[in-house]
Amino acid sequence: MIVIGERINGQFSQVAKAIDRRDTKLIQDLALEQTNAGAHILDINTGPGRDDAPVAMAWLVRTVQDVVQVRLSIDSPSLKVQQTGLAECKLDPLVNSTTAEQKRMEAFFPLAREHGAEIVCLTINEKGIPNTVEARAEIAMVLLANAMDAGIDPGKVFLDPVILPISAAQDQCSVVYDSITALRALNTPPPRTLVGLSNVSSGAEERSLLNRTFLAMLLGRGLDAAIVDPTDAELMRVVKASEVLLNQRLYAHSFLKA
Amino acid sequence: MIVIGERINGQFSQVAKAIDRRDTKLIQDLALEQTNAGAHILDINTGPGRDDAPVAMAWLVRTVQDVVQVRLSIDSPSLKVQQTGLAECKLDPLVNSTTAEQKRMEAFFPLAREHGAEIVCLTINEKGIPNTVEARAEIAMVLLANAMDAGIDPGKVFLDPVILPISAAQDQCSVVYDSITALRALNTPPPRTLVGLSNVSSGAEERSLLNRTFLAMLLGRGLDAAIVDPTDAELMRVVKASEVLLNQRLYAHSFLKA
Repeated sequence: MIVIGERINGQFSQVAKAIDRRDTKLIQDLALEQTNAGAHILDINTGPGRDDAPVAMAWLVRTVQDVVQVRLSIDSPSLKVQQTGLAECKLDPLVNSTTAEQKRMEAFFPLAREHGAEIVCLTINEKGIPNTVEARAEIAMVLLANAMDAGIDPGKVFLDPVILPISAAQDQCSVVYDSITALRALNTPPPRTLVGLSNVSSGAEERSLLNRTFLAMLLGRGLDAAIVDPTDAELMRVVKASEVLLNQRLYAHSFLKA
Repeated sequence: MIVIGERINGQFSQVAKAIDRRDTKLIQDLALEQTNAGAHILDINTGPGRDDAPVAMAWLVRTVQDVVQVRLSIDSPSLKVQQTGLAECKLDPLVNSTTAEQKRMEAFFPLAREHGAEIVCLTINEKGIPNTVEARAEIAMVLLANAMDAGIDPGKVFLDPVILPISAAQDQCSVVYDSITALRALNTPPPRTLVGLSNVSSGAEERSLLNRTFLAMLLGRGLDAAIVDPTDAELMRVVKASEVLLNQRLYAHSFLKA
């Protein structure tokens, strides 16, 4: 599984304050902590309601890259913020994310292509997030077709069926599992899939248990990547065990303890 | 999920000794411990190489039923042992198990019907355990057809795709996931599926982690029942979390902590 670290996000008050103060150490510690825990990519999000978001994004990207060589996921719905973030990236970035809204696709696919970036595509359109597997798959087809029209290799697309909080929409979890199967059936080879895992337990108790159980279920369906907290040791143990169970890593007696 | 407790099994040396000594207390403690932990059915197995197996099975069934009202799974490939066990059962039993071998089916399906029992059907035939999803599904069809011919309601059948130890056959884990999906597609409503979970980690380190991760993956595919160790608290937490995530139990903030 491709592990994308979620911790550098201005929605966490500690991170928001660090951005305000340009507190290099706190951000760099979060970057090191996540990559040491096994993150392959770090998600970078300046958080909500920030007038200086483009400048803050550029600062975050530089600050992280000063301590660790790792791919970054520029997480913003703003074209301006994406542009300033992508311009600073030293390794191939991930654009997180576009929806199937016409305006977003017209801006974000050319942007991703220009930067040689991978791109997360949410199954959301002008009408919102549909509540069926079929409707999510239809939107995913629109996303794939538009990405290819914009000259993006389908291997650079991650389809995201959009996890909602279980506390608000319990029936939508099953729709997400089944969507993984449906999205993978849209093309050959199967398009890659990604989720923002922690959404499932937003506002819930026992967040880690819900997160890691849901992740195992999704990996069993063929999920390729997830935005998670890699410093959750139990979650990372489930990732390792899943990789062994899916025959993606050789089983060895010592492996899971490592 | 239907939780079938695996602990009363003569393959565990402590249980074998208790059977030898007719140690009522040890067996009854195991029965209570498992039902208190959430087992819906208790599997009863006298263990390998025992000349007195029919008598031992009858004793185990009576001993368990003296302390707890719970359904039992009579776990033996011997017709004689099944008969003495089933004859003692006060509640509807589970016959564990038949294969698709002609001789076994001819003996076990009429037996299950006579006792109004549910029956576990392993996807094994005269040639052994096949290593593909398709071949397992073919055997499952033979099992379902023969069960129905013998007058057994398909709702009383559990199809078991046979988990092998990951340390011996790592590629077979994926075959088991995909078999759950394939077996469920064989009929409408979907036939119920069951696994003997702990086999996956036989001879492995980190047994509980492998067991519970594999269980979450299988539940995400629609697994109905599993023979497990219900006294593994982390495993039972994953069962609960899976039921919430699959919308089979109402999510409540307090639920997972209960």
